Amino acid sequence: MKLEMICTGEEVLSGQIVDTNAAWFANLMMEHGIEVQRRVTVGDRMEDLVAVFQERSLHADIILVNGGLGPTSDDLSAEAMAQAKGEPLVENQEWRAHLEDWFSRNNRVMSANNLKQAWLPASAVMIDNPVGTACGFRVKLNRAWLFFTPGVPFELKHMVNEQFLPFVQQEFGINANVALHKILTFGHGESLLASKLEPLALPVGMTLGYRSSMPHIEIKLFARGDEAIAQLPQVAEQVKAALGTAVVAENKATLAEEIHHKLYRSGKTLSAAESCTGGLITSQLVAFAGSSSYLQQGLVTYSNESKVKVLGVKPQTLDDFGAVSIQVVEEMARGARSLLDCDYALATSGIAGPDGGTEEKPVGTVAIALATRNAVYSQMVKISGRSRDLVRSLSAAVAYDMLRRELDNEAVVVDYSSIRRYAK
Amino acid sequence: MKLEMICTGEEVLSGQIVDTNAAWFANLMMEHGIEVQRRVTVGDRMEDLVAVFQERSLHADIILVNGGLGPTSDDLSAEAMAQAKGEPLVENQEWRAHLEDWFSRNNRVMSANNLKQAWLPASAVMIDNPVGTACGFRVKLNRAWLFFTPGVPFELKHMVNEQFLPFVQQEFGINANVALHKILTFGHGESLLASKLEPLALPVGMTLGYRSSMPHIEIKLFARGDEAIAQLPQVAEQVKAALGTAVVAENKATLAEEIHHKLYRSGKTLSAAESCTGGLITSQLVAFAGSSSYLQQGLVTYSNESKVKVLGVKPQTLDDFGAVSIQVVEEMARGARSLLDCDYALATSGIAGPDGGTEEKPVGTVAIALATRNAVYSQMVKISGRSRDLVRSLSAAVAYDMLRRELDNEAVVVDYSSIRRYAK
Repeated sequence: MKLEMICTGEEVLSGQIVDTNAAWFANLMMEHGIEVQRRVTVGDRMEDLVAVFQERSLHADIILVNGGLGPTSDDLSAEAMAQAKGEPLVENQEWRAHLEDWFSRNNRVMSANNLKQAWLPASAVMIDNPVGTACGFRVKLNRAWLFFTPGVPFELKHMVNEQFLPFVQQEFGINANVALHKILTFGHGESLLASKLEPLALPVGMTLGYRSSMPHIEIKLFARGDEAIAQLPQVAEQVKAALGTAVVAENKATLAEEIHHKLYRSGKTLSAAESCTGGLITSQLVAFAGSSSYLQQGLVTYSNESKVKVLGVKPQTLDDFGAVSIQVVEEMARGARSLLDCDYALATSGIAGPDGGTEEKPVGTVAIALATRNAVYSQMVKISGRSRDLVRSLSAAVAYDMLRRELDNEAVVVDYSSIRRYAK
Repeated sequence: MKLEMICTGEEVLSGQIVDTNAAWFANLMMEHGIEVQRRVTVGDRMEDLVAVFQERSLHADIILVNGGLGPTSDDLSAEAMAQAKGEPLVENQEWRAHLEDWFSRNNRVMSANNLKQAWLPASAVMIDNPVGTACGFRVKLNRAWLFFTPGVPFELKHMVNEQFLPFVQQEFGINANVALHKILTFGHGESLLASKLEPLALPVGMTLGYRSSMPHIEIKLFARGDEAIAQLPQVAEQVKAALGTAVVAENKATLAEEIHHKLYRSGKTLSAAESCTGGLITSQLVAFAGSSSYLQQGLVTYSNESKVKVLGVKPQTLDDFGAVSIQVVEEMARGARSLLDCDYALATSGIAGPDGGTEEKPVGTVAIALATRNAVYSQMVKISGRSRDLVRSLSAAVAYDMLRRELDNEAVVVDYSSIRRYAK
């Protein structure tokens, strides 16, 4: 079965919006063991739409078309499909009734434009949209089924999960007998990880992929078929053993997500005192619902005065060692922890750049500390040749990783091959 | 001139990474007055690449091809182009010498794989890459010039700006006689903005577009040709007059960027005390280099204890009015400002959801305050039917907008048609 995708819309084509629908769809299909083989993005011109429907229907078995089902004059997908097939548009009585009902229930006046959404190519099979006013539909042309979906991400996701996937499975007998195991790594480059995993003999039906999403690299173990699926847990253990301390989480997208789950379950509390990371450690956790149960406070103490007044860093320590130092960041962590008597506190102080570096402490120099009830751990790293954003996100990830190792009773400070550490 | 784009790479096609290169390129072209007419995304299979080069070269005049120039076995663009044209690969001596020089200067051993990057289709014109090991090249096939660029965003941007644009301008005589004026709005829906701008008669050669990038809506005035360009400032003034308080910035991407520039220039200092926004106000400013000159500190005081101990909020106020109240957020702002004697402090306290709402204060209820040396301004808004992320980013935007209005000597608290405000 050959699957393609056609994305429509001037906004997507012209780069005014990034096409996250396309990435979401392709990724979902891959997790079901189905590859998208080609994706074509076109604007809202009638002749472009008609041409691409006709052309791709000669090559693919099924084509997911996204966008162009709305009520405005730019929304041409149904009419273009009718032209491509050489048939008229016909009003779908079921969807018209549905629209009238929807507008009267919501006390809104239905305009003539909205009625347009019930007009489908004559041979189309209507596809219900329980969460919006644009119905989907599918049409057979040449060798392909073209499956039309709304551009609104929420509506697309509904329709793909509830209608497209079952249709594909029924029509093409795809047995989505696949499983995925994700292993999150941090601190090592893709080539190094690959060299450690190369000796591993993967069972038939299993593939291994790398996905770089800074500051992490994710390793995906993809198993197709019962035999490969049965061996997945065992192979995952082999991968983890081969990678050692590079592994920071399993089946989580980020270190922040891992920390969130660990702290949420543990009942332990956390404060953060951030300088160069500027609230990143805090805000990545706040993004998860329920974080208020463990996150006591996050203090972005940018100025020296703030480090002294709020965190109790000694002015003498700042004078003696400078704001970016092991000594200061340890006092920051201690101060942040004791202020509300938390279980843990993380602290960072560094030079994110592009300016502010010195010969001794160039841009990318970051001191990071973790305070617990019994100890303070710290390290000073040098993240060179990276943008301000990356210095910040890598620093936050090192901090999270220190806390994660403490929560897992591992050594808190480890070597990262892709991040240099200053000798203490 | 008909411009298309071909994006290559399994990772892009399969949705493992979102194709921001494509959006960046299309957007840049649009700002130069050139439309991308179609974008095709394919994986790393040789036959797919050959087919798409042959096919699209019949339809387009110029095609930007992105990706597949690296040293690994997945990188097939040069070989696929040679096959599509029916010619051999030939080693480019200039680029080989460049590679040898680069590796010896960087004290790195050059592998056989790297040499592959100097092999180009026989008829190719090599294109310099001053920032990477993959040279670009261009080949004429059928009616099209295919212009090959590296997938690394930084290298792509260099090559497009320094080589692709001049080539297009020279080859196709494109006179990029265009200008763009962006007007950033906040707090009002697109349909309302559109209804206010509809009566405006735009001069010939000028178009008006809307781009929703939550929490803002950007209005783009695009002028093509000398006459339209000359009228751009005047039309921009008309647009601003028609939109009134909805306008929050010009030629800036976000309110945070506007605040950054205003504070950076003014020499005034800021602190933030954030509860539900969880560091967002601070971290959006820290993202800009130079923010340490005005941002004194950002305090994420999630717990009540932290509000009391760090900001000096009175326990009685918390008891009497609850953490999400005008009274508490005003004390938070006052406390954050006086702690380091800043010029301004922003404070937020709210219920971001999805849990934690009550009948009186449902999810989306957020209290926001601005403290200055002379006064405290506050409002309580109700952001309903939005995700946790959006409640947070809309709240941060309201806070920035209050500060921006104060800096511009405007009324600090205004009505937003898309955000409800509680009566005080």
